[in-house]
Amino acid sequence: MTGLKTMLNPKVTAVIGVSTKNPFSPGNVIFRKLAFENGLPTYPINPKGGTVEGVDVHKSIVSAPEGIELAVISVPAKYVPGVLRECGEKKIRSVIVVSGGFSEVGENGASLQSEIIEIANRYKISMVGPNCIGVFVPDILDTFFLPSERVARPRKGNVALISQSGGWLIERLEEFAARDVGIAAAISIGNSAQTTGTDFVEHFGKDECVDVICAYIEGFGPGEGRDFVEACKKIAPKKPVVVLKGGESEAGHRATQSHTSSLAGNHAVTNAAFHQYGVIHALDEDEVMAYAKVFSFKPKYMLGPRIGTLTVSGGHGVIASDEASDYGLIMPPFSENEQAQMRAEMTPAYQGITSFRNPCDLTGSAADVDYERVLEKMLGFDSIDAALLLLLPYAPGISLQIGARVANVAKRYDKIVVAYVPDLDKYEVIIRGFELNGIAVGDTIEESVQMLNAIRMRSKYLQQIGKL
Amino acid sequence: MTGLKTMLNPKVTAVIGVSTKNPFSPGNVIFRKLAFENGLPTYPINPKGGTVEGVDVHKSIVSAPEGIELAVISVPAKYVPGVLRECGEKKIRSVIVVSGGFSEVGENGASLQSEIIEIANRYKISMVGPNCIGVFVPDILDTFFLPSERVARPRKGNVALISQSGGWLIERLEEFAARDVGIAAAISIGNSAQTTGTDFVEHFGKDECVDVICAYIEGFGPGEGRDFVEACKKIAPKKPVVVLKGGESEAGHRATQSHTSSLAGNHAVTNAAFHQYGVIHALDEDEVMAYAKVFSFKPKYMLGPRIGTLTVSGGHGVIASDEASDYGLIMPPFSENEQAQMRAEMTPAYQGITSFRNPCDLTGSAADVDYERVLEKMLGFDSIDAALLLLLPYAPGISLQIGARVANVAKRYDKIVVAYVPDLDKYEVIIRGFELNGIAVGDTIEESVQMLNAIRMRSKYLQQIGKL
Repeated sequence: MTGLKTMLNPKVTAVIGVSTKNPFSPGNVIFRKLAFENGLPTYPINPKGGTVEGVDVHKSIVSAPEGIELAVISVPAKYVPGVLRECGEKKIRSVIVVSGGFSEVGENGASLQSEIIEIANRYKISMVGPNCIGVFVPDILDTFFLPSERVARPRKGNVALISQSGGWLIERLEEFAARDVGIAAAISIGNSAQTTGTDFVEHFGKDECVDVICAYIEGFGPGEGRDFVEACKKIAPKKPVVVLKGGESEAGHRATQSHTSSLAGNHAVTNAAFHQYGVIHALDEDEVMAYAKVFSFKPKYMLGPRIGTLTVSGGHGVIASDEASDYGLIMPPFSENEQAQMRAEMTPAYQGITSFRNPCDLTGSAADVDYERVLEKMLGFDSIDAALLLLLPYAPGISLQIGARVANVAKRYDKIVVAYVPDLDKYEVIIRGFELNGIAVGDTIEESVQMLNAIRMRSKYLQQIGKL
Repeated sequence: MTGLKTMLNPKVTAVIGVSTKNPFSPGNVIFRKLAFENGLPTYPINPKGGTVEGVDVHKSIVSAPEGIELAVISVPAKYVPGVLRECGEKKIRSVIVVSGGFSEVGENGASLQSEIIEIANRYKISMVGPNCIGVFVPDILDTFFLPSERVARPRKGNVALISQSGGWLIERLEEFAARDVGIAAAISIGNSAQTTGTDFVEHFGKDECVDVICAYIEGFGPGEGRDFVEACKKIAPKKPVVVLKGGESEAGHRATQSHTSSLAGNHAVTNAAFHQYGVIHALDEDEVMAYAKVFSFKPKYMLGPRIGTLTVSGGHGVIASDEASDYGLIMPPFSENEQAQMRAEMTPAYQGITSFRNPCDLTGSAADVDYERVLEKMLGFDSIDAALLLLLPYAPGISLQIGARVANVAKRYDKIVVAYVPDLDKYEVIIRGFELNGIAVGDTIEESVQMLNAIRMRSKYLQQIGKL
């Protein structure tokens, strides 16, 4: 779909449906963003003419200058077919239809939706929507009709987000910004009438700047589910595709019909299909975040399910053990010999109160140096495939340097290491110390376990298809 | 246990085991907190004498002045029996043993633990620990050996926290502070050798200032499990008791042995027992937070499982439907007539793009006034028992006043209302608007559903025992 390229990086844009009276009208918010914040040449369109924010309004796209690559349509549903046709005549190849009032509202809307699909196809327009908030590409463009000051913007990065729900997507942007995970692009596909999630998965599959693809899908039109997993199957050997499927309960299913009029599926069926096609199935937003974040680090592989865990709080070790068990990961007890080797690394005064069975509890008396030395010893053991660090910087012996120092130990080994550090501003230095040195940090014990699970699932998949 | 009262509100304290060399030694951190931050008369003890932070150190508790109500012991395990005996002779009735090196490290430690239990019993000492971080009571005392500047302190409130893990407890304090949920006290019971979780559940059961009791338990000693649930059963009709049980997986079970040497149980058995005794069983930290927070509001009851949901994002409605379904809550479709009544409340321009089947999606075009009016109509319907508000303040029509305004609508009805608002500083005004007016706000869609689940579970329990 050539239209997707210009959709995500247009030189000239137009917004059809700005109001000359209401500055908060969706079209006006979009116009201000494109024209003033993204700095793109942008033509506002309204049949009544006039001016908006001091700029002359064109009465139709037909009378606007040539060279428009992307048009954003935000007019009542009944006017969409007409203006879309004009876009086609004007040879605009990328169109985003923000307007709602299509198949999500019933039969009349469905026939209107068929009509615009037909027009888009006839004019070779790549159309995103209707009933969507459009696209956001860091530093390039933002067509979300939500005022910029209300929505966080993640930094440029390597995760592509595709969502059938604009609201869901916005919340991910907040979260990605808060967790400092960068995105390549965020796409709201809405009713995905013509251009679908599959098209974007294929697009980002080829994009060298994208290392992880994450999608929130509520349901597929007839036959679309198979296309989607087939597309994922082609891309999965190259990069992870993480999918959260909404509407899997009966109630949720009914809700999707009113939302994006999709046919939601059955959880077990989805899970089996996703697994077969190499899709990483996230079960909730937390898993989406955990998986996206850890894959954005382009992590090493995890050749088996065995984790060695290092903690300074026994309770955290217990909770991590329960969580790991839920995810099919194993914390094998260390041998007497291994335990003795690790204990010998501890400051002598604390050797008697520490425990090394796995999880290894260094207690609240441990200092940075204990943590470093025990980890170094542990990473050398063949009995584990990965290490999980549960780091509570509440203990007085833990300094702000621990993140960077421990990360340097981890670098000397081939094993994957993931950390948990409470996600608090006061511990930012520790978190940065880990992450700048390539170790992903979870903001809950559960998230750090989910991160290991993601890597294990991916490694297992690559082992199965003979790529690892 | 009379010793618990002075333990939580002592007039004079002593810290046995301060270092004259290492200011970061646990005893020193505790001494500074009690003496300088809590402003309590506090005697530092070390057999070598000398001074600490400019204060004279007593060579033993025996030679310290009279009137000490609470002693905190932080000396190597082997010295604990001796100093505990001295505390007994000195008629100190409340003792916290911070030291590790007891039953959690094996047989030698276990016999040392038996010895101190015997001493505490003989001298009628209420002993908390060993292997714990002690107690924190807002504005009164803090014996946690973690420097104050590293750990958040929630405001004074009505939730009592009891934990077998100090690390777990510290994280809850961070979370309660961040979410502005107040606590009455936080207790780390460690190995709970003598004073147990049961004792504290009974204590807080009688405390008029406590409206919710939350406990994290890794396991029980022989016979202790039954005592615990029996204690909960007596208190449950008066106030909710929320319990998270760690170590329920096989791996987690093994971890608890190294941590607090408890006998962890089996998940299904725990769940059945908790239910039978009126204990609210939280399955993870998120549920602990959701349940504690919503009960801290002393919410109305929820006489049935039917929820009416109001959203401005269809995707959020879908996710809430899935979550509600997981928790056995129902979102019944509204009748044609009810739908028409709600639609008529909307701004005419948006009536055509909204959906009222339940969840009701007012779309990103909705303004405060739409939200208020539709909610008012919905709360009047007999077809629902509670309302769930999914409020995304990203839409331009939503103002910062919406929380307080919607809360005022809710006040006119007997039904429970819970909201979800993204937990971001920029939306603090909205969250405060809700919460100051009695509506608990979840920081995820899932948490808001968990809050409704908590109220429904509690209401159902009270219905079953004939109290509602």
